[in-house]
Amino acid sequence: MIYLTRRERFSAAHRMFRPELTDKENMIIYGKCSNPLWHGHNYVLKVTVKGEPDTDTGYFMNATRLRDIITERIIVKLDHKNMNVETDFMAGKVATTENLAMAIWGELEAPLAEEGATLHCIRIEETENNYVEYYG
Amino acid sequence: MIYLTRRERFSAAHRMFRPELTDKENMIIYGKCSNPLWHGHNYVLKVTVKGEPDTDTGYFMNATRLRDIITERIIVKLDHKNMNVETDFMAGKVATTENLAMAIWGELEAPLAEEGATLHCIRIEETENNYVEYYG
Amino acid sequence: MIYLTRRERFSAAHRMFRPELTDKENMIIYGKCSNPLWHGHNYVLKVTVKGEPDTDTGYFMNATRLRDIITERIIVKLDHKNMNVETDFMAGKVATTENLAMAIWGELEAPLAEEGATLHCIRIEETENNYVEYYG
Amino acid sequence: MIYLTRRERFSAAHRMFRPELTDKENMIIYGKCSNPLWHGHNYVLKVTVKGEPDTDTGYFMNATRLRDIITERIIVKLDHKNMNVETDFMAGKVATTENLAMAIWGELEAPLAEEGATLHCIRIEETENNYVEYYG
Amino acid sequence: MIYLTRRERFSAAHRMFRPELTDKENMIIYGKCSNPLWHGHNYVLKVTVKGEPDTDTGYFMNATRLRDIITERIIVKLDHKNMNVETDFMAGKVATTENLAMAIWGELEAPLAEEGATLHCIRIEETENNYVEYYG
Amino acid sequence: MIYLTRRERFSAAHRMFRPELTDKENMIIYGKCSNPLWHGHNYVLKVTVKGEPDTDTGYFMNATRLRDIITERIIVKLDHKNMNVETDFMAGKVATTENLAMAIWGELEAPLAEEGATLHCIRIEETENNYVEYYG
Repeated sequence: MIYLTRRERFSAAHRMFRPELTDKENMIIYGKCSNPLWHGHNYVLKVTVKGEPDTDTGYFMNATRLRDIITERIIVKLDHKNMNVETDFMAGKVATTENLAMAIWGELEAPLAEEGATLHCIRIEETENNYVEYYG
Repeated sequence: MIYLTRRERFSAAHRMFRPELTDKENMIIYGKCSNPLWHGHNYVLKVTVKGEPDTDTGYFMNATRLRDIITERIIVKLDHKNMNVETDFMAGKVATTENLAMAIWGELEAPLAEEGATLHCIRIEETENNYVEYYG
Repeated sequence: MIYLTRRERFSAAHRMFRPELTDKENMIIYGKCSNPLWHGHNYVLKVTVKGEPDTDTGYFMNATRLRDIITERIIVKLDHKNMNVETDFMAGKVATTENLAMAIWGELEAPLAEEGATLHCIRIEETENNYVEYYG
Repeated sequence: MIYLTRRERFSAAHRMFRPELTDKENMIIYGKCSNPLWHGHNYVLKVTVKGEPDTDTGYFMNATRLRDIITERIIVKLDHKNMNVETDFMAGKVATTENLAMAIWGELEAPLAEEGATLHCIRIEETENNYVEYYG
Repeated sequence: MIYLTRRERFSAAHRMFRPELTDKENMIIYGKCSNPLWHGHNYVLKVTVKGEPDTDTGYFMNATRLRDIITERIIVKLDHKNMNVETDFMAGKVATTENLAMAIWGELEAPLAEEGATLHCIRIEETENNYVEYYG
Repeated sequence: MIYLTRRERFSAAHRMFRPELTDKENMIIYGKCSNPLWHGHNYVLKVTVKGEPDTDTGYFMNATRLRDIITERIIVKLDHKNMNVETDFMAGKVATTENLAMAIWGELEAPLAEEGATLHCIRIEETENNYVEYYG
């Protein structure tokens, strides 16, 4: 079994808040990340898939194909977007990195399976000091 | 003459647009960076000052003091903020990295001179692939 | 289950040696790392915790709280310190990165559990070419 | 159990192709990576070994010894070489990163076991956006 | 005056050698970099241009336009290529990083001037430990 | 004129203090950097030389030769050392990064000139957030 990881990047605006709470209540829970006027990040996304390399080709999934699927399914919906407002798979969710990782897993699992690859890990780095990982 | 550089970071939302133009016109000039719903970045700011090290202390400006001035004058006004709406020194300016660098120069030159340091360069990295430098 | 990692840094002096051995014997085992006059590193510490995100808040532990616990329990005892002499949880231990990782685990496991987070991994990068990981 | 990772680098030429296919057929499978005139990369190799630290020395394998074994067995055969033509352990294999990782595992497992270390992972980063991992 | 830098990458094969010399003589001058079977690198190219930002738009050259010019003129001729054999602007030159930087300057100076930007610096990083800069 | 930069690293212990002052007075000037029990860093040293490339060889100084001179003159005296006590060219100086940069300039200028290279810049990165540059 080989694990293949592709790194992509997107720059997005977001804020963390629960709509049923006041700004003051959200500030207590999420701090400056709940700023109602938004803030943003250069997010780094690492998608890891696993599979048995084909003995003829020497791989189980072409890295270029992996890049294209991530771009089409995820990056075009997040890059230079407001993820709270514009990203369909984040609708109705608090825009934490944790929820984002789980939502991206949901978007990628099936299309990657169609390529014969098993999704192994979604990793999102929000800043150079924080990242989350989700393994399904 | 010694050059001392301090690196700081801030995560902000912004959009590039000119208010006298339509969204369509702004899209032609600024592309996806003019998204009316905002986007954001992890900006890296590098401030370089120069001076003659004191022969007794071995430096001309304490790096901790440099950090504090950058934080008080710049970072608190940009980090987890919407720079178009909330950052006083960007009011009325197009939120390009070029304008941001020149505005930060304007904010830092005098307070650094009071410390005996000459501001040499403001460098802002918007993504890992783009940065601007301003030397006054 | 989500894995959340926080990266912190500390700059410390140390030497690797066993007090019951001579400097010459320590040099055979630890090489230049046993220099009796000390040397030092910019250490990078990555602490990974795991948990089930709360469906209301979208996380299981606030990254800021994680940072504060690491700072209070670990960083203040190591940053700009001599870890052999000044760091209580390294007393009587050879100052290898391996022992440091296990000692930091011991310091963090209980206070993180009090926050509802399960400690998953302590990773310490001593240089850009060497790191150790400990999973308890 | 402690996991120790050593990072090494090598700069090599390669191409991905199957000799029984035409250049055109290889181009369909491998794209520009099958260029018959070669291309190359700065590869990053991370070798992770695991073991129980000795209570006297505070480690289970000296990082310098780990570096030397990787250098002697792997780096001298790849650095500034054409891996398709000159690297004995890649002979007859398609020069994918996946095959390279499995071949390096084969070269390192036994000599590391002789040192009392268990090989845990071979990770190869071909570019800043792609890497593979092999766990045996 | 503002300085704008764009970072691009290319993976290429090369060797350093002078055709009028024997392999042995080339080995004395260029060492392992003269390997007749080639080797390669992930090169990082940083192109810096300078200009006066337009007071209306807030920039003097669109970073996307800069990226496109570098890609069309330089990257397509070097990425996944053998620069000694396939790159027209390196024909007849020893493939040192120094010569590469000067040749790229020659390719970019005029097309950038047509955009109203003055080429300031070509920087090429061959490995993480070596880079050259050329200012014309 | 081409500028060639070589990056090297060393891990050293140091403290900043003036021997004629008390520990308390040094603490006021240098803060935690004056800890009498030492601390340390992974320093990054970048040495930039300039020259006219030879039209035959395509360079003015071999990067390997540059590496060797830096190693012999600087790195062996600093790596895994206490720079206050063990580094001859720092004797009697406050161990600030500023003084270190100027001292390294003094050690390298003449031997590089013997190779036909003009020393242009000494850059020392003490942490990922601070660096100094000296141009003679």
